[in-house]
Amino acid sequence: MTLPPEFSLIARHFRPLAGPGALELEDDAALLAPPPGRELVLAADAMVAGVHFLPDDPPETIGRKLLRTNLSDLAAMGAAPLGYLMTTGLPRGLPDGWLGAFAAGLAADQREFGLSLLGGDTVSTPGPIHLSLTILGHVAPGAALRRAGARPGDEIWVSGSIGDGTLGLGVLQGEFPADAAGFLAERYRLPRPRLGLGQALAGLARAAMDVSDGLAQDLGHLCRAGGCGAVLRAADVPLSPAARALLRGAPALLPRILTGGDDYELLFAAAPGDAEAIRAQAAACGVAVSRIGHFAPGEAVVTVVDGAGARLDLGQGGWSHF
Amino acid sequence: MTLPPEFSLIARHFRPLAGPGALELEDDAALLAPPPGRELVLAADAMVAGVHFLPDDPPETIGRKLLRTNLSDLAAMGAAPLGYLMTTGLPRGLPDGWLGAFAAGLAADQREFGLSLLGGDTVSTPGPIHLSLTILGHVAPGAALRRAGARPGDEIWVSGSIGDGTLGLGVLQGEFPADAAGFLAERYRLPRPRLGLGQALAGLARAAMDVSDGLAQDLGHLCRAGGCGAVLRAADVPLSPAARALLRGAPALLPRILTGGDDYELLFAAAPGDAEAIRAQAAACGVAVSRIGHFAPGEAVVTVVDGAGARLDLGQGGWSHF
Repeated sequence: MTLPPEFSLIARHFRPLAGPGALELEDDAALLAPPPGRELVLAADAMVAGVHFLPDDPPETIGRKLLRTNLSDLAAMGAAPLGYLMTTGLPRGLPDGWLGAFAAGLAADQREFGLSLLGGDTVSTPGPIHLSLTILGHVAPGAALRRAGARPGDEIWVSGSIGDGTLGLGVLQGEFPADAAGFLAERYRLPRPRLGLGQALAGLARAAMDVSDGLAQDLGHLCRAGGCGAVLRAADVPLSPAARALLRGAPALLPRILTGGDDYELLFAAAPGDAEAIRAQAAACGVAVSRIGHFAPGEAVVTVVDGAGARLDLGQGGWSHF
Repeated sequence: MTLPPEFSLIARHFRPLAGPGALELEDDAALLAPPPGRELVLAADAMVAGVHFLPDDPPETIGRKLLRTNLSDLAAMGAAPLGYLMTTGLPRGLPDGWLGAFAAGLAADQREFGLSLLGGDTVSTPGPIHLSLTILGHVAPGAALRRAGARPGDEIWVSGSIGDGTLGLGVLQGEFPADAAGFLAERYRLPRPRLGLGQALAGLARAAMDVSDGLAQDLGHLCRAGGCGAVLRAADVPLSPAARALLRGAPALLPRILTGGDDYELLFAAAPGDAEAIRAQAAACGVAVSRIGHFAPGEAVVTVVDGAGARLDLGQGGWSHF
């Protein structure tokens, strides 16, 4: 009796990604001795072709995007990565080269972020490519960053730059001209999980999350969790040079920048007195951070204001699946 | 800004499933203090409508089947359940009642098996319903059952009964008449993870796995992992009364019973001298166990013999996705 093709597919493409505890992907489950005295941090994300990535995205970037969105969840909790499990739903007849490139991208990110594959499942689907990844990380007990904790008067901080992901999607869909360096498209395809910064914010950030569904909507989550409102200063939201160039030509893009998804930056609350310490930690991590507003007493409502302090209406804010 | 519909869907259907560590599904990740001094056991499985379950299966059973196939992986390692993360890919327009019934089934199984939801993700898909579940369990260090370890002379054991899953699928697809009690269809829809038996086999089974892709194929895995062959006595393979009744009318079904998927029974190797201890442990768990052959020196080949010792050819054995 010969082995069915899925075993050869797993052996060729996924076994090289397997690390300690994965038992070469040959057992029913993985075995992992958790780091003694640490809490586990667990998150799961799914990605579907045509919904979360473009069917013609380079396969090298697709697995990396999924891994990085999960790593971004670890960053948001201040956790360090430990390993991951992944299930892949693949159409029959997917070219073998696609899977090879997909796995090669994951291998590169495993080296960059210091984790490896623990296990998973490979199934066929009559639908589009469907990927699901569960990540494990660890954190000192009680040190995890949480969404609840922002208080009126706290400052709102965000890492990196906002809007690149949604603009990059627009570039890839032909809606905008591409920037010469391909920066925006790369930001859509390859988020940059802020793991170092997340870990450095323990004891400094009062609340934190990663921005995945749009800055304004996700800030609303921090407000609801903290039981307070927020004032977001649109003019202080950090933009990349490429995003700034697009916005200069089309000022109506501002709501899209503030509500579009795929940023994967850290959004956090901190006491004003901690600003200097936060800047120092961020500099040590090589990540830019910006203060973009403050939390305010009252209802969990995000008020967006322009440079002159006038209120901006963003319309329907944030990505929804349904 | 109102919350998008997916948040209400998660709050209504999935938050009631969330247990300790899930942080009410409101943070970026779950936090779990692992049981001190235990190893973690981790497995992930995906299920696609039309591939792993029938699109018109009762939604109450679909999440339970996914959870139970993962619990069966824990059972195969001798582990106790701890919690799970689940991602759901759902077509837009899925009736709300479907999700309510899906979650109610999971709630029932959470109570039965003593675990709860830790986290996940809910996305839309243009394809069929696509579910992925990662399970966490725990085991005493070094006590996990493994696929490698069977030696020539060891007896082959299996729990419960074999073939019900694949025959149940045939019943649901109108290929066979249903048994009066609906036993076979239920066995296809609701596997019975042998968690108690798996834990009781620590120190007794030399190798173990769960039968998910067909008995003959999965026995081949134990052979390859152990570097030996196996002789499977078809006449000793345990059949349910319903399966036996079908086979009586159609003896050509035997290869299908021995190679069809969806059994989710434990298959294990043990020294002949441990037979009595194994029977005692199984009786204490209330699970039937049967000796169905032995491991043999030589190549990793499964030889199937009939009651008279003559060799049977099963043809193409085992389920493959590709």
